[in-house]
Amino acid sequence: MADYLAPWRQLSDRNGAIRFIDANLRGAGQVMLQDNPLTGLLFIVGVAWGASVAGRPQVAISGIVALVAATLTAMALNADATSLRQGTFGFNGILVGIAVPTFLVPTPAMWLVLLIGAAVSTIAMQAISHVTKLWGIPALTFPFVLTTWLLLLSAYSFARLPIASMGPPAFPTAAAAAPMDFSASSLLDAVIRGVSQVFLIDNTVAGTVFIIALLVSSVWAAVFAVAGATVAVVLAMVLGASQAAVAAGLYGFSPVLTAIALGAVFFKPSWRVALFALLGTAFAAIVQGALDAALAPIGIPTFTAAFVLVTWLFLLPRDNLQPHPHAPIKNGVVTDK
Amino acid sequence: MADYLAPWRQLSDRNGAIRFIDANLRGAGQVMLQDNPLTGLLFIVGVAWGASVAGRPQVAISGIVALVAATLTAMALNADATSLRQGTFGFNGILVGIAVPTFLVPTPAMWLVLLIGAAVSTIAMQAISHVTKLWGIPALTFPFVLTTWLLLLSAYSFARLPIASMGPPAFPTAAAAAPMDFSASSLLDAVIRGVSQVFLIDNTVAGTVFIIALLVSSVWAAVFAVAGATVAVVLAMVLGASQAAVAAGLYGFSPVLTAIALGAVFFKPSWRVALFALLGTAFAAIVQGALDAALAPIGIPTFTAAFVLVTWLFLLPRDNLQPHPHAPIKNGVVTDK
Amino acid sequence: MADYLAPWRQLSDRNGAIRFIDANLRGAGQVMLQDNPLTGLLFIVGVAWGASVAGRPQVAISGIVALVAATLTAMALNADATSLRQGTFGFNGILVGIAVPTFLVPTPAMWLVLLIGAAVSTIAMQAISHVTKLWGIPALTFPFVLTTWLLLLSAYSFARLPIASMGPPAFPTAAAAAPMDFSASSLLDAVIRGVSQVFLIDNTVAGTVFIIALLVSSVWAAVFAVAGATVAVVLAMVLGASQAAVAAGLYGFSPVLTAIALGAVFFKPSWRVALFALLGTAFAAIVQGALDAALAPIGIPTFTAAFVLVTWLFLLPRDNLQPHPHAPIKNGVVTDK
Repeated sequence: MADYLAPWRQLSDRNGAIRFIDANLRGAGQVMLQDNPLTGLLFIVGVAWGASVAGRPQVAISGIVALVAATLTAMALNADATSLRQGTFGFNGILVGIAVPTFLVPTPAMWLVLLIGAAVSTIAMQAISHVTKLWGIPALTFPFVLTTWLLLLSAYSFARLPIASMGPPAFPTAAAAAPMDFSASSLLDAVIRGVSQVFLIDNTVAGTVFIIALLVSSVWAAVFAVAGATVAVVLAMVLGASQAAVAAGLYGFSPVLTAIALGAVFFKPSWRVALFALLGTAFAAIVQGALDAALAPIGIPTFTAAFVLVTWLFLLPRDNLQPHPHAPIKNGVVTDK
Repeated sequence: MADYLAPWRQLSDRNGAIRFIDANLRGAGQVMLQDNPLTGLLFIVGVAWGASVAGRPQVAISGIVALVAATLTAMALNADATSLRQGTFGFNGILVGIAVPTFLVPTPAMWLVLLIGAAVSTIAMQAISHVTKLWGIPALTFPFVLTTWLLLLSAYSFARLPIASMGPPAFPTAAAAAPMDFSASSLLDAVIRGVSQVFLIDNTVAGTVFIIALLVSSVWAAVFAVAGATVAVVLAMVLGASQAAVAAGLYGFSPVLTAIALGAVFFKPSWRVALFALLGTAFAAIVQGALDAALAPIGIPTFTAAFVLVTWLFLLPRDNLQPHPHAPIKNGVVTDK
Repeated sequence: MADYLAPWRQLSDRNGAIRFIDANLRGAGQVMLQDNPLTGLLFIVGVAWGASVAGRPQVAISGIVALVAATLTAMALNADATSLRQGTFGFNGILVGIAVPTFLVPTPAMWLVLLIGAAVSTIAMQAISHVTKLWGIPALTFPFVLTTWLLLLSAYSFARLPIASMGPPAFPTAAAAAPMDFSASSLLDAVIRGVSQVFLIDNTVAGTVFIIALLVSSVWAAVFAVAGATVAVVLAMVLGASQAAVAAGLYGFSPVLTAIALGAVFFKPSWRVALFALLGTAFAAIVQGALDAALAPIGIPTFTAAFVLVTWLFLLPRDNLQPHPHAPIKNGVVTDK
């Protein structure tokens, strides 16, 4: 716990309203596995900037609305107080709230399913954590991925949920070889956008704010985030991914989260762990390409499914790595293990 | 347990043949989570009526054949006697038996795979219950869904299994907006057909018989079934679903089962639980639209997958809701938990 | 344990290099669930023969490279010594190594993802075993299936991974009825190729070598392998599968493994078990047809997914069958259960 947060924590211990704000800010922070309200606040600032620049301020608003709705749902369901305060039920909500109006037109029907989805994201978080804690692993962002996949898929069946920007459904087609042409500065830009895409934002300033937000919580988290995005950009280029996708950071967001999780959160940083995280991060970039192809026929985005799948695979054999369980496992929703 | 069944229970305690009939009738009843032989009998009557009116009496016959085959398989595998008697192994069998000749042409090869499928449905029930009981949740109709998906998918590979009415495989396409035009009586009809579609029957009389069948077992089950179908029809209309699908009850069957499960079976009815069940039921209607889109490219029906997925999600966090475990969990196949 | 192996075992007890070779040979043997280095050696000989005849010797080389890489990864991760020695971490690796260059063009980028995949196959084995051991079932070849699906799917996104022979992605189409025309010798050939396809080899000599390899380890394993392939060929013909696919053994490999697993490895052979295995084997042939259709839109092969799915379904209800747990469960990675 960062020392500079002590006064804020005392304030939130005494005041219910501050405690509620704190829980929501930490919920935003948990998107990148950081239990830190300042990190969460900076994440929201970055999202607001990126969404405004892209001419879609509703994305930031709906993100905050869904974050609050998910936290309120957890309170209504008498969720464990410690988990609540750590933002355990907010990070899936804010992601649902950002994703839905990114891909659907903001109609009243969209707001209805978004609110249902935000509430369901909390129930899904409790459900999936209840399943995964048997193996000592966290739910990660799978509640967000599952809930949002279902909401977006339903848009193909419901005329009042017009699609803004996803699909159309198509067979995966073998990528055509094209020479890659990256300058040093465009490479750096692709790396930073990989970080910004964790929040579905395609913006260098927002990505920079996100990296600063990590730094105020954990230097290692920031280091592994940037390293993860770099590994993803380099590997995607070596394997011949679409340059437009690489430049937009679309190969980066899952490796970024995988690198933070494996390198800085669930294991204690060391050379041995760094190598393990490197393998996981590289595999996450490959899995990103795989899931892009697998979901093409049903016309929905992968979201952070590659991060969830790879991180689960790499966390499950922990006994072989003498792991050092860290806060999100010990004090998250997975408390009674 | 309904009192009027006491003489029948004494009879079946004494007589093995009656006990076998009883187990099969309860198996039919368990399709809507009712451990009641009269309910099961009325379900079979409704199916027979609906299938005959539609000119496909073989559907009712194959349903009964598969029900008996599934129960016999459980006996051959020395299944737990209590579970057997409660119809735990029959409900997936009867659904396999109804579904297969609904979508495939009744050839000798179809009967062969149907019998294999009925036997496998019992093994799948034991397998899936063995998995889900670790979290204190029931298998629901997932054994039926999984087995029937596999049987129907195989029809695309096998020329002697000609397809009667499913598919063709296609990409999901965004639904076109069209004004809905429902009268009060056609709305009521859509609600009742939502109940009838639990057995893949599109018939108002059959749906009415099914509601009566629920009433003789549990008033709450009937209330939540009708409420679930109503929520589904209203939400599907609000979201702009295809009117033909809504009128045929195709948005209703999974929400009906979800409402029964969450509202009347696995939790003790209360206002709090009713609100929780309402959220689950609404989400089940959305998930129905989502799975219709997701399965379009492989050309198979969703069956009750939306019910299974949503009910699992909403049952898993039970600890947060002070749940009141009910018979199907305590005395089902999930006995040794 | 076969007696003739005693001197070899003493040798490998004393010498680390021999022990490493032994672990790798057993890894090859475990592809058909045999903990026997001679079986593994003969499997490799059969693969080398089949690959060379097909003009693709690189397939045998990459199989051995990936086998060794997977074993070395397990050693680097301090895997349990007993499991390591039984070849628990090698069988998925050799299959990844055979599958990747069978479907992708052998470029430098392919070798890079193949080596990443071989290492990941070991981590996936530890991860999936950690999950499945909760129910007392083994991971089977699911680590291979999952890893290779992801590697091959990614080829659609990466231009430097050109596809050699899979896809193109397409909707499943109902098979056209065509008269089957099998002579006795072509039937026998289809059966033997069913065994050879376990290693993705389409070659009668290789299949014969594989059967001999089973015989030196377990007569029952060889008997059930041939019986499984025969059941698959007959059922696929009866149901009207494509004759070319049946002749190439493509309906046989999953039923072969299912028959070995259910008939000779995880249950003690008996008439009752043989009937149970027969049902599982027949269902595995149907599931093969189902998965061929289900994966058509994303253009990847099924690999042994039908074997994994059916064998899991048939192993999970073991309590009902008074099972006799066998070596792979007791002394595999699933030791602490």
